[in-house]
Amino acid sequence: MPLDPEAPIILSVFEASPDRGRGLARDMPVRWALEETGLAYRVRPLPFAATKQPDHVARQPFGQIPAYEEDGLVLFESGAIVLHIATRHAGLLPDDAHVRARAISWMFAALSTVEPPIVNYAMASLVERDSDWYERRLPMLVDAVDARLAALAVRIGDAEWLEGNFTAGDLMMIAVLRRLKASGLLDGHPRLAAYVARGEARSAFRRAFDAQRALFADLSEAEGVPS
Amino acid sequence: MPLDPEAPIILSVFEASPDRGRGLARDMPVRWALEETGLAYRVRPLPFAATKQPDHVARQPFGQIPAYEEDGLVLFESGAIVLHIATRHAGLLPDDAHVRARAISWMFAALSTVEPPIVNYAMASLVERDSDWYERRLPMLVDAVDARLAALAVRIGDAEWLEGNFTAGDLMMIAVLRRLKASGLLDGHPRLAAYVARGEARSAFRRAFDAQRALFADLSEAEGVPS
Repeated sequence: MPLDPEAPIILSVFEASPDRGRGLARDMPVRWALEETGLAYRVRPLPFAATKQPDHVARQPFGQIPAYEEDGLVLFESGAIVLHIATRHAGLLPDDAHVRARAISWMFAALSTVEPPIVNYAMASLVERDSDWYERRLPMLVDAVDARLAALAVRIGDAEWLEGNFTAGDLMMIAVLRRLKASGLLDGHPRLAAYVARGEARSAFRRAFDAQRALFADLSEAEGVPS
Repeated sequence: MPLDPEAPIILSVFEASPDRGRGLARDMPVRWALEETGLAYRVRPLPFAATKQPDHVARQPFGQIPAYEEDGLVLFESGAIVLHIATRHAGLLPDDAHVRARAISWMFAALSTVEPPIVNYAMASLVERDSDWYERRLPMLVDAVDARLAALAVRIGDAEWLEGNFTAGDLMMIAVLRRLKASGLLDGHPRLAAYVARGEARSAFRRAFDAQRALFADLSEAEGVPS
């Protein structure tokens, strides 16, 4: 689904994502969910400073991206937005009530159990790398990530997705695991690396990725930033 | 709603919660949601070691508590369980679709935006207190918590709850903020301290708290542990 300047759905995103277009910002799972369900949307690109201004804080109380607007509804938190899309449009949650509830368990697991140690690992290398404790704390951070990966790899086993067909639980889990791609930490878990690759091979993922990449590339070109 | 040994809902919990009955374990928001909606339940108390065994990992892939069973459905992640209860029983989500979606945004905000810095702060004081970097990292950890609290305090303002009436979003947010009670970090945000107190004053909260406290107290008495 191409971006549509007349679409009723508006997604507020970073004008220049700090991940330099690698699809790791939190608008990525929402764009992916919109593509899986075939919903047109448009974006409101915001400079970082604008995300802390009253206009945006009214939409997103913590001054983060993304925010989602649709016919007077304003939502925040990528998990909540993906769930909202998934519960109202076919393609991301199965009809069976039990499987549906379990898919939602995986969404929460991605965001509250798997992601926090990944963010801690990534943030330490970003803001504490020059500290004298960085190297000494690193094994603890890696172990915390690896414990989650090991449990997830056992559970997924040889299955293609977490609960039968692809669900919003897979979408959110893969979006979270992608943060580890540059780290090499997925290499020890080939089942998870293959799982992430299966997600990235979906055409909806590709369209979402390309859309956020194009936004970053346009800005880089305009400002002469090497990408 | 008293615990009912015949109830169809079974909650797997720690036999001896590491928080010593202060209601900070992740079964607490689920118990609270069950009490708000008037659902009877029973518990399966597990020694810590048992949560890592195959029987429990089949219920909870990461070997955590709680797990939730009901008529053949097995769910995990406190957020997903509370949402499951809230969407099927009156009392925790409003009928209005927009307000309902926003209440769910607050559930995700509690677990993925507000809780991670709180857990980092709490874990550092638990496992890194004797390190030579603990005191030097502490201001960064406190600032991360305080930034979330400040934003939340601005948003709640003089309102009683986050979206009109009490919702599952308040339940989850208050459950998360309660982790800070012993730290003094809520003292700088009297609106949030009052918000937490309003949650704790609810009779459903009190029943849930007393039930988890009684489980810990029974064990302490049986084993002669000072409580």
